[in-house]
Amino acid sequence: MFGWSVTAANVLAFPGLNTLGISMNRVDFAPGGLNPPHSHPRASETGVVIKGKLLVGFVTTSNVFHSKVLTEGQMFVVPRGLVHFQINVGKGKALLFTAFNSQLPGSAVAATTLFASKPSIPNEVLTKAFQVDDDVIKNIKSKFGS
Amino acid sequence: MFGWSVTAANVLAFPGLNTLGISMNRVDFAPGGLNPPHSHPRASETGVVIKGKLLVGFVTTSNVFHSKVLTEGQMFVVPRGLVHFQINVGKGKALLFTAFNSQLPGSAVAATTLFASKPSIPNEVLTKAFQVDDDVIKNIKSKFGS
Amino acid sequence: MFGWSVTAANVLAFPGLNTLGISMNRVDFAPGGLNPPHSHPRASETGVVIKGKLLVGFVTTSNVFHSKVLTEGQMFVVPRGLVHFQINVGKGKALLFTAFNSQLPGSAVAATTLFASKPSIPNEVLTKAFQVDDDVIKNIKSKFGS
Amino acid sequence: MFGWSVTAANVLAFPGLNTLGISMNRVDFAPGGLNPPHSHPRASETGVVIKGKLLVGFVTTSNVFHSKVLTEGQMFVVPRGLVHFQINVGKGKALLFTAFNSQLPGSAVAATTLFASKPSIPNEVLTKAFQVDDDVIKNIKSKFGS
Amino acid sequence: MFGWSVTAANVLAFPGLNTLGISMNRVDFAPGGLNPPHSHPRASETGVVIKGKLLVGFVTTSNVFHSKVLTEGQMFVVPRGLVHFQINVGKGKALLFTAFNSQLPGSAVAATTLFASKPSIPNEVLTKAFQVDDDVIKNIKSKFGS
Amino acid sequence: MFGWSVTAANVLAFPGLNTLGISMNRVDFAPGGLNPPHSHPRASETGVVIKGKLLVGFVTTSNVFHSKVLTEGQMFVVPRGLVHFQINVGKGKALLFTAFNSQLPGSAVAATTLFASKPSIPNEVLTKAFQVDDDVIKNIKSKFGS
Repeated sequence: MFGWSVTAANVLAFPGLNTLGISMNRVDFAPGGLNPPHSHPRASETGVVIKGKLLVGFVTTSNVFHSKVLTEGQMFVVPRGLVHFQINVGKGKALLFTAFNSQLPGSAVAATTLFASKPSIPNEVLTKAFQVDDDVIKNIKSKFGS
Repeated sequence: MFGWSVTAANVLAFPGLNTLGISMNRVDFAPGGLNPPHSHPRASETGVVIKGKLLVGFVTTSNVFHSKVLTEGQMFVVPRGLVHFQINVGKGKALLFTAFNSQLPGSAVAATTLFASKPSIPNEVLTKAFQVDDDVIKNIKSKFGS
Repeated sequence: MFGWSVTAANVLAFPGLNTLGISMNRVDFAPGGLNPPHSHPRASETGVVIKGKLLVGFVTTSNVFHSKVLTEGQMFVVPRGLVHFQINVGKGKALLFTAFNSQLPGSAVAATTLFASKPSIPNEVLTKAFQVDDDVIKNIKSKFGS
Repeated sequence: MFGWSVTAANVLAFPGLNTLGISMNRVDFAPGGLNPPHSHPRASETGVVIKGKLLVGFVTTSNVFHSKVLTEGQMFVVPRGLVHFQINVGKGKALLFTAFNSQLPGSAVAATTLFASKPSIPNEVLTKAFQVDDDVIKNIKSKFGS
Repeated sequence: MFGWSVTAANVLAFPGLNTLGISMNRVDFAPGGLNPPHSHPRASETGVVIKGKLLVGFVTTSNVFHSKVLTEGQMFVVPRGLVHFQINVGKGKALLFTAFNSQLPGSAVAATTLFASKPSIPNEVLTKAFQVDDDVIKNIKSKFGS
Repeated sequence: MFGWSVTAANVLAFPGLNTLGISMNRVDFAPGGLNPPHSHPRASETGVVIKGKLLVGFVTTSNVFHSKVLTEGQMFVVPRGLVHFQINVGKGKALLFTAFNSQLPGSAVAATTLFASKPSIPNEVLTKAFQVDDDVIKNIKSKFGS
C-alpha cells in the first residue's frame, strides 16, 4: 500500500536474541515509498540510511516535529514511543537499517491502529478525536478494509 | 475541545517524585467527554473509575481493540506505549484516577501529534498514510489550528 | 483487627498485568480504621483519597516521619521500601486507591512480620531490639496468636 | 545499644561506586551482639560470616521466618526489602561482610523507624498496630529517647 | 595498525542520545582489515554488513567460539560483555554498521587492555596468565609502545 | 594452573538467588597464586580481602590501569565488564570474598577466551591482534591444550 517493506530481525525471527535487549530491522523503499507514521511501544530506535534519500521525522510529546532529509551514511534517532516516519524523497530506491533497544520493540502504526483495528474503534470516538464528520471516518476505514 | 480535562501529578508538578518511578493523573469528564486516543511513551498505566460510566479501550500492536464499559470502582490497565482512550458514556460527569510506572510518562495524542505539530507533518505523508485526499488532511489540520 | 481492608489488583488477581510493571490496591477504612505500618519490598506507591479524611505518613531511612491529613482528591507518595500507614481520622468511612510500580509489590506488615511470623522470631532478639522485657514481647505475640 | 557496629562502604563513603549498582558493609558483633531487625529499601543482600557464629534470619511477605545458625565461611541472602537480623550466638566476637545490589541500599531499622522517628508516630497508631496499651508504647519510645 | 577504523555515534558525539539507551557505530575495513578482539562492558551489539565479506565471531563464557562469514545484508548479534571481532576476508573494502543498547557502550580491546595500559600490568601477571616467558610479554608490549 | 580457586555462590549453585540480582564468590589463593585477567559480562563486582596480601587491579576502557596492594579488611570495586585480576603478593595463603550485582555474572578469562576456545580463534586474527608471529600464538595455545 505504501511502497515500503520491513524485514524484522527481532526475537521472533531469531530466538538467540532472547534476553539480549536489542534487535534490528531492514527497511526497503520503492521510489516515493512511505514507512507510515508509527511508534514502537518498547524501544528507542536508531537508523542509518544505506542507499537513497529519505525524509525522516518524529513528533515529540510537546508536538514539535523534527525532520531532516538524510542520505547515504547518515543516521537518526527516535526516542522511545514517539510517532515517526520515513519517506523516500529520492529518485531511486532507498534502503535503511534500524536498531532497537528491545528484543521485541513492537510497532503501532497510527493509521491502522486508529482506523483498522479488529473490532473497530467506535466512529463516535474518532469523529470527536479528529473533529471530522462521520463520512470522513467511514471513508478512511474503508480504505483499510474496515 | 473534548469535554475532558487532566490534572497531572507527575515530577514536574511534584519534584518529590524524582527517581521514584511512579506518578498519577486525575481525569475529569463532562457528559460525553472524550480523553482522545493517545499513548504514553514511557509508562504502563492503570486506572480506576471513581464516578460515572466510561468506555475505555486500547489497541494492541496486532491491531486488536480491547474495550469495556466500566463503572465506579472498576479498574483497567494499558500496556506501555499503546494507543488508548476513555469516553464518558454515562448521563452525568465522570471521574477517573490513573497511575503510571514513570515519574514523567509523557503523552502523545494521536490527533495533535499527526495533524497539529509545529511545524506540520507534510500533507504528502498524511494523505498517503491515511489514504485520503489532500482536502481531508487540510480540513482536519484546520480544526486544530494548523 | 484494624477496621481496614485491602483489595489487591495485582498480577495474582489479574494475570494480564504480567510484565507490565504496575498494579493497584483499593483500601477501605471503617471509622478509626488503620492500615497498619507496613512496607512494600518491590515498589514505590502513590495514593489518592476518594472519600473521608486520612492521616497518611511514612518514615525515611533517616528516621524522619513525614505525615499529613488528606481529604478527598488529595494524593501522596511513598518511596520504595519505606514503612508507612494510613489511619481514618474522619467521622465516617474512608476510601483510598493506591498504585505501585510493580506487578506484585508485596507487603511486609511491621507488627505481623516481627511478632506473628511462623516460626516465631526468638524473644531474645525482640527484647533486645525493642529494649523491653520478655513479658512485653510475649504479650504482643499473644495478641497476634503466636 | 545492641553490641554491634556497621561500617558502610556505600557511595557516600566511596564516590567511585556511583552508577555501579553495588556496595558492601562490614558488620562487627560483640558476644551476644545483635544487628536488630531492619530492611534495605533499595537492595537485595548477600552476606558471608568471616568469624564467629551468627543466627541469621529474615521474614517473607507471607510471614514465614527463615533462619539458620551460620559459622565461618557460610553465606546467606536476603531478598530486597524484607526484614532481617543477625545475632551473635557464639562465645566470642563475630565478623560479617555483606554486599548489596545498590550503591546506596538504605536501611530502615524496625525499632527506630517505629518508635524513635522525628517527629514521633502517634501513639494511637502504634497501640492499635501492636495491640498494646499506651504505657507499653511510651515505655518503648522512652528507651529510644523519644 | 589493523586496517580498520570506527566512527562512533554515541552520546559523546551526539548529546541527543542522552537517556535513550541506544547508539551506533560505523566500521570501515581495508582489505584484510581486522576489528581486533574486544568487548563492550555496557551493551549487547547487533551488526549488519553493508559491503564486503566479514568473518565475525565471539566467544561465550563457556569458551565456545561462534563464527560465520557474512556478506552484504547479513546480520549478527554479540551478547553483552563477550569478546568478539570481525575480519575482512573479502577482496575489497568492507563496511559494517553496528548498534548498541547503551548510549555509551564503551570498548575494551583485549590486546591494548592487557599489553598497552598506562601504567602497565606487571609482567609477572601476564607471563603467568598466558603461560609464556617474560620475553614474549616484553615483545608484545613493545609492539604497542609499552 | 594459576595457584588459585574459586567457589561460586551464584544462581546455578543456589536456586534461591533467582531474580534477586546478587551473588558471591569465595576466592582462595596459594602463595603467588593468580586469579588471571578476566571480566564479568553481566555484573559490577566488589571484594574484600579476608586474609593475606593481594595486588588487585583493573583496566578502564581508556586503558588506564588502576591497582593497589590490599590487606585484610580492605575492599575494592570493579565496574561492570572491565578486565581485572588479583595476585597473591604476600608470603602465605590469601582469601577473598567478592560480590556481584547479578545472579549469574559470568566470567570471560582473557587467556582462555582468546587462546583456548573451542573451536579455536584463527591464528590470523590473533597474530594481527597481538602483533606477534604465528609461533608465539601456537606456543600460547599449546599451553592451554589448544
